[in-house]
Amino acid sequence: MRRIAALGKPDLGVLFDPGSVAVVGASEDPGKLGFHVMRSLLTGGYKGAIYPVNPGRGEVMGVRSHPSLSEVPGDVDLCVMVLPAERILGQVRACISKGIKGAVLATSGFKEIDDPTGAALQAEVGRMATEAGIPIIGPNTFGLVNRHADLNASFTPEFGLVKKGGVSLVSQSGGMCHLLAFLAMRSGVGFSKIVGLGNRCNVDFGDLLRYLQGDPATKVVALYMEGIDDPRPMMAEARSCTGSKPVIAYKVGASTVGDPASLSHTGSMAGHHGVYRGAFRQAGILAVDGAEEFLDAAKALAMCPLPEGPGVAVITGQAGPAMAACDVCEREGLRIVRFSPETRKKIEALLSPLSLRDNPVDMGPAWYNMAALKGVVEAAIEDEGVHSLLLLMTYASANAALAEGLVAMLGEERWQKPVLACMTAPPGVWDGEIERLEGMGALVNFPTPERAARAAANLWGARLTRSHAGPERAI
Amino acid sequence: MRRIAALGKPDLGVLFDPGSVAVVGASEDPGKLGFHVMRSLLTGGYKGAIYPVNPGRGEVMGVRSHPSLSEVPGDVDLCVMVLPAERILGQVRACISKGIKGAVLATSGFKEIDDPTGAALQAEVGRMATEAGIPIIGPNTFGLVNRHADLNASFTPEFGLVKKGGVSLVSQSGGMCHLLAFLAMRSGVGFSKIVGLGNRCNVDFGDLLRYLQGDPATKVVALYMEGIDDPRPMMAEARSCTGSKPVIAYKVGASTVGDPASLSHTGSMAGHHGVYRGAFRQAGILAVDGAEEFLDAAKALAMCPLPEGPGVAVITGQAGPAMAACDVCEREGLRIVRFSPETRKKIEALLSPLSLRDNPVDMGPAWYNMAALKGVVEAAIEDEGVHSLLLLMTYASANAALAEGLVAMLGEERWQKPVLACMTAPPGVWDGEIERLEGMGALVNFPTPERAARAAANLWGARLTRSHAGPERAI
Repeated sequence: MRRIAALGKPDLGVLFDPGSVAVVGASEDPGKLGFHVMRSLLTGGYKGAIYPVNPGRGEVMGVRSHPSLSEVPGDVDLCVMVLPAERILGQVRACISKGIKGAVLATSGFKEIDDPTGAALQAEVGRMATEAGIPIIGPNTFGLVNRHADLNASFTPEFGLVKKGGVSLVSQSGGMCHLLAFLAMRSGVGFSKIVGLGNRCNVDFGDLLRYLQGDPATKVVALYMEGIDDPRPMMAEARSCTGSKPVIAYKVGASTVGDPASLSHTGSMAGHHGVYRGAFRQAGILAVDGAEEFLDAAKALAMCPLPEGPGVAVITGQAGPAMAACDVCEREGLRIVRFSPETRKKIEALLSPLSLRDNPVDMGPAWYNMAALKGVVEAAIEDEGVHSLLLLMTYASANAALAEGLVAMLGEERWQKPVLACMTAPPGVWDGEIERLEGMGALVNFPTPERAARAAANLWGARLTRSHAGPERAI
Repeated sequence: MRRIAALGKPDLGVLFDPGSVAVVGASEDPGKLGFHVMRSLLTGGYKGAIYPVNPGRGEVMGVRSHPSLSEVPGDVDLCVMVLPAERILGQVRACISKGIKGAVLATSGFKEIDDPTGAALQAEVGRMATEAGIPIIGPNTFGLVNRHADLNASFTPEFGLVKKGGVSLVSQSGGMCHLLAFLAMRSGVGFSKIVGLGNRCNVDFGDLLRYLQGDPATKVVALYMEGIDDPRPMMAEARSCTGSKPVIAYKVGASTVGDPASLSHTGSMAGHHGVYRGAFRQAGILAVDGAEEFLDAAKALAMCPLPEGPGVAVITGQAGPAMAACDVCEREGLRIVRFSPETRKKIEALLSPLSLRDNPVDMGPAWYNMAALKGVVEAAIEDEGVHSLLLLMTYASANAALAEGLVAMLGEERWQKPVLACMTAPPGVWDGEIERLEGMGALVNFPTPERAARAAANLWGARLTRSHAGPERAI
């Protein structure tokens, strides 16, 4: 692969903030990808010019259409191509003539197919585009999304429903990227950029990593990987960026049968799993394990400060969830600290004799007492040994107002330590309050105490990875 | 503890199917548990007689109230007590005089408090009730639920929203039990019985295990544990029941700090974790790890036949989720089998050259072709080496109709092998179809490919555990 970075000026910004987008292959036939790309752009709220290109139509979805790219009246920054593979070379030439600045190549039938002509075609497209200085996302991709620009240059209009936030996701798999986005819609993870790399014709993980490290809207870079031909440039790129933003990776393909699937899927070997974990650690990338852990870690990293140590305080309404959280904390390298005598004294003054007075703090009946809860939270978070706080609150009919109370209580406060919560209630009951608490930056919520604890461990893992002194867990 | 089982006639059935329920301490004050218990019974749809007992009121929530238990006109099968601890002994005497058949003691202030008078009071209550042949759930419990009798004898009306199904959950923690129920509402897990054991005055895990093994509405018994004084009777009970229903357990308290919390919480030592895992294996109980895995395993076990071997076929719309699933399968002791030559021939005839022809089967473009999908599913499931099927389908704008197609396709079929799915879509999009597919018994759905794979591994683990030949994973 000849990477666009070889040119020394990989301006990927234009891919995400184009002033105009052309859709070559725009269509009103729902059986065609050109239909879905148009719908994504139109329903996503994109403010720039949209130019459908289709020789057979005067307009597409109410937007004036053009017979060819060369006949588009204005400049085209980004060109989305949804034509059959055999027509792509001609279109790439047209893109170069038109002076476009970046492209998304959704079409499949390149390196991912068995037929070697696919790989040859991809190499030719890459060569031409790289020489012309045009970065191409794809081929064989759903596209890309920039939530902060309301740009949905993909064939999935539903990406426009994903919450705006600080996570930028770069995925080697379209299927997994969709799955992650749909999961994220349920768990309140907010995104900045979403990119499906596809076959990586001349833009690879390393290029995006460099761009996203400099992108102010990106708080954490999340990489989903199946295997890349040569991981070294990406790892070098990652190393050179270490120290600024956290980078996490979910790498599949550990199983012996997974590898052949990967080979066929996006035209590369999944590679030996162990090699990757070592390389991730060296590159300052935190490896996670599973789609939900990946999203949870991304959410925590986008919304919380990094902890300065492994000390955790657990404040809970019920003992059971706290025990489950403590099990995970200890297993994952966090420490449930003993409070200082001062902290213990403050907490004892607030709680009845029925309650535990040390960490984890079981609030017992004082759970319903907002002043006591506030005092305990403040005392714990001010303890020098505490670096993160876990707040576990399960709904009961008698404490329905608790979430509203937390909004009032935490709304005034802002701590420099991460607060990870598991507030659990029947569907619809506390959803609004949790969203407000997250929106205020007061806490980050997770569906189970175990996942909140694991996210806390990953925050600490990211802190360790950044300082290049990570234990095995933090690679 | 003197267990009710010592009497040789622990008829726990009356706890779950009472003809009448008295609520001693019924109230219209939302600050009292007696309010919430009344609301649970009334909104839950319970068909038997409800007798509020409250000397200060003529009626509670529109139901005629009685000054004392002895003045209730009819027989009382189940008595729910929500009085302060100091008034409980008198009420237990009243229960005995009235001839009630079972009780729920929601009150706290017994063995779980630091003050030794709590433990003494609990021992006295237990002694009296056991001598009178009255099983007591609690003290210090939210209560119990029998979804199939529309009985919600708890202080949480929302338990009435939990789906009806085959899982019976016995929990040592009220908080965790609520959390599990709220999670289950989101993931479609259906319940038969839900019991909060509380301090286990004279009814313990073993008693419920024996009862639930004989309960036709229970397909799987799910135990949440923090630690019990003497696990031997329970383990002996479990051993004597092995061979009929699957029993799974989620045991917390592995962390060093978790133990003291448990000690205070429900009046017992959490005990050393390793001892439990060995005892579970000997007793034929499958141990799981985490709230979500617990529910996923319970759901799969309640809805699927047990597989006869570790062989898995993966049929997928996209390579990425399949790779993630394969990683988990291999790690958890399942085998992604090579298909037989006949199976491969059948599948090759149905798929284009773009697709993988062996396991995992990437449907590629044939994903949209219901006849091809049906053929591939049938071929895979008829393969002798295949014991479970994983079906992974991620929504895309162009395949929105896929879920409806699956309903039509799978509606006619019924296989004797488990079909575990991960059908993922934006919230609300495929929810109805997934519910129908689950309702038809066609498949069981999970939110990620990893969780579907892990549930498949737990089905196989339950099969191994039943045959007393489990590997380390299946303890």
